[in-house]
Amino acid sequence: MTRGRFITFEGIEGAGKSSLQRALAEALTARGHVVCATREPGGTPLAEEIRALALARRSDGMPPTTELLLMFAARAAHVSQRLAPALARGEWVLCDRFTDASRAYQGGGRGLDEGIIDALASIAHPALAPDLTFLLDLAPEAGLARARNRQDNGDRFEDEALAFFARVRAHYLLLAQREPQRFRVLDATQTPAELLAAALQELAAL
Amino acid sequence: MTRGRFITFEGIEGAGKSSLQRALAEALTARGHVVCATREPGGTPLAEEIRALALARRSDGMPPTTELLLMFAARAAHVSQRLAPALARGEWVLCDRFTDASRAYQGGGRGLDEGIIDALASIAHPALAPDLTFLLDLAPEAGLARARNRQDNGDRFEDEALAFFARVRAHYLLLAQREPQRFRVLDATQTPAELLAAALQELAAL
Repeated sequence: MTRGRFITFEGIEGAGKSSLQRALAEALTARGHVVCATREPGGTPLAEEIRALALARRSDGMPPTTELLLMFAARAAHVSQRLAPALARGEWVLCDRFTDASRAYQGGGRGLDEGIIDALASIAHPALAPDLTFLLDLAPEAGLARARNRQDNGDRFEDEALAFFARVRAHYLLLAQREPQRFRVLDATQTPAELLAAALQELAAL
Repeated sequence: MTRGRFITFEGIEGAGKSSLQRALAEALTARGHVVCATREPGGTPLAEEIRALALARRSDGMPPTTELLLMFAARAAHVSQRLAPALARGEWVLCDRFTDASRAYQGGGRGLDEGIIDALASIAHPALAPDLTFLLDLAPEAGLARARNRQDNGDRFEDEALAFFARVRAHYLLLAQREPQRFRVLDATQTPAELLAAALQELAAL
């Protein structure tokens, strides 16, 4: 059996990752594909517990290295228990955030060394990388305004200052520049229908 | 100010680590030393939450890599928020388990690669190692019988088979053989008074 496709969605808070993921999952399912829609940190019961701990406001002030190690602990569980098996079954895996998020948030945002993130990536998911990554690019002001309009109570990342998200965004754009064959940068101010059309066009080329 | 002393206690379940730690803490305090008695995984509120998640029976079946990353996530928080500051203040830090436990349990017990543990140690606590490590050596049969006689309900590690603890014990002894200048192997079948006397003699030499 052919290995499935591994598509990830990246961007700052409020960029519209999960909306695009949901729309693409529906479109692919309608075409007869088997879709595994998942998210990070999380995606398995254990990884969701790690997520809750990592994002909780009571965890604020944790050392950046702890934050990074928690993200990769959750990722190792997610990859081995859900993501890799789904790919092996030939499914389309649509994942809201993956290791690029650790690079952008803990690397770009918190200033952690890139070599540490490389080492953890090779421990948690040796030889696994997304086939295609949609980067929903948006100014932090716009993203945070959207995120804070949501019904939920947000998390400790949404409490970060604008400068933090400016660093995260810049780091995402740097990653996209480094790997143009894998990244597709989408202007996140487009309408949901425009974004879906653009994403489907990219997938058709895949 | 002189950096404090960093003493760790290692051994399998039921070997008597925490009893010896408690007795030593009392003896050192009585001699006028400031003692920070702590444990791993744990030692800070966040690290204790990570501990609860890592040891809970509901977490059984987690991939060994996730288990290892959780241990080091807790350790990074413990070192940066409690252990290193206490050492910097000149205190005696007495810690029930440290990175040797990851080597013995996740390396020896679960079979994870030593290079991965080395990499994580250098990420979570660059340039920090115990000054002295007491290895309480005991046959797994005896240790488990003691541990299962306790009032608490145990954790998912205590549910492991005897063969697992035999591997852990063998790996501890290997670590002690590799670093004889740091390790002191104590026969854990001795009485608490004998163990305390032996440990105090070692500390006097320190």
